[in-house]
Amino acid sequence: MTTGVGEAHNEASIRALIDAQIRAVRARDVDASMSNYAADIVSFDVVNTLQKIGLEECRKRAEEWFSSFQGPIEYEISELSVSAGDTLAFSHSLNHVNATNNEGKKIDMWWRATAGYRKIDHRWMITHEHMSVPFDAESGKALLDLKP
Amino acid sequence: MTTGVGEAHNEASIRALIDAQIRAVRARDVDASMSNYAADIVSFDVVNTLQKIGLEECRKRAEEWFSSFQGPIEYEISELSVSAGDTLAFSHSLNHVNATNNEGKKIDMWWRATAGYRKIDHRWMITHEHMSVPFDAESGKALLDLKP
Repeated sequence: MTTGVGEAHNEASIRALIDAQIRAVRARDVDASMSNYAADIVSFDVVNTLQKIGLEECRKRAEEWFSSFQGPIEYEISELSVSAGDTLAFSHSLNHVNATNNEGKKIDMWWRATAGYRKIDHRWMITHEHMSVPFDAESGKALLDLKP
Repeated sequence: MTTGVGEAHNEASIRALIDAQIRAVRARDVDASMSNYAADIVSFDVVNTLQKIGLEECRKRAEEWFSSFQGPIEYEISELSVSAGDTLAFSHSLNHVNATNNEGKKIDMWWRATAGYRKIDHRWMITHEHMSVPFDAESGKALLDLKP
């Protein structure tokens, strides 16, 4: 969604950042992934807590998540939308992992991902992310097998 | 998070929009709530589906949600962060409802809320929202009783 050359350039920068994040997950590269997060990141993650604040909590979570799988992590994103201005941007997508966890269970799961970005010292950084699955209102169970 | 007069004005506009949304929930005013959504809204909602696209689906959901309660809907938001540029903005917060549903069950629940906004024809509109609770990784149950 762009209205001019500047916005198109900003959108391309955000898409490049998102591509780098995808490569980082596939490579289990915690440092590469964390390098795109702002120091005051506020993360609403898929599991366990309402929020994680700051790089240290997010790094710990990335390390745990990457190391919870054996073998390759197949990871892709779908239906990506990027809205980018000169100093702010946000994106949303449906994200998909296909991998085997350390207990030998196959994880084939889609979730919703939203991210907010700010240009800090001429570099786009993720300042907020929100990843989740909905839950079934009747059973109270998280819906882990929805597909787009 | 502002760097100048323009951004401060934009941030104030977004906060006013959020206040209007809070009042709309408390008043069960579907029209007032929907008037702040863009036609191509993409909503990642708390329950049941990965996404809802467009005003009609979002209106249906708001009608169902508002009418699922008997008596007053106590609704507040906490830890609100607004990042606003000239044409784009995003916000995140922890939202809390305290009400009694039609089955007589007390609903006292916090969730995470993220929204994306665009200025369209000189007016800020919600183009994306993401609301969720995390789930417990062991039990697969949505965590409906977390508190900030």
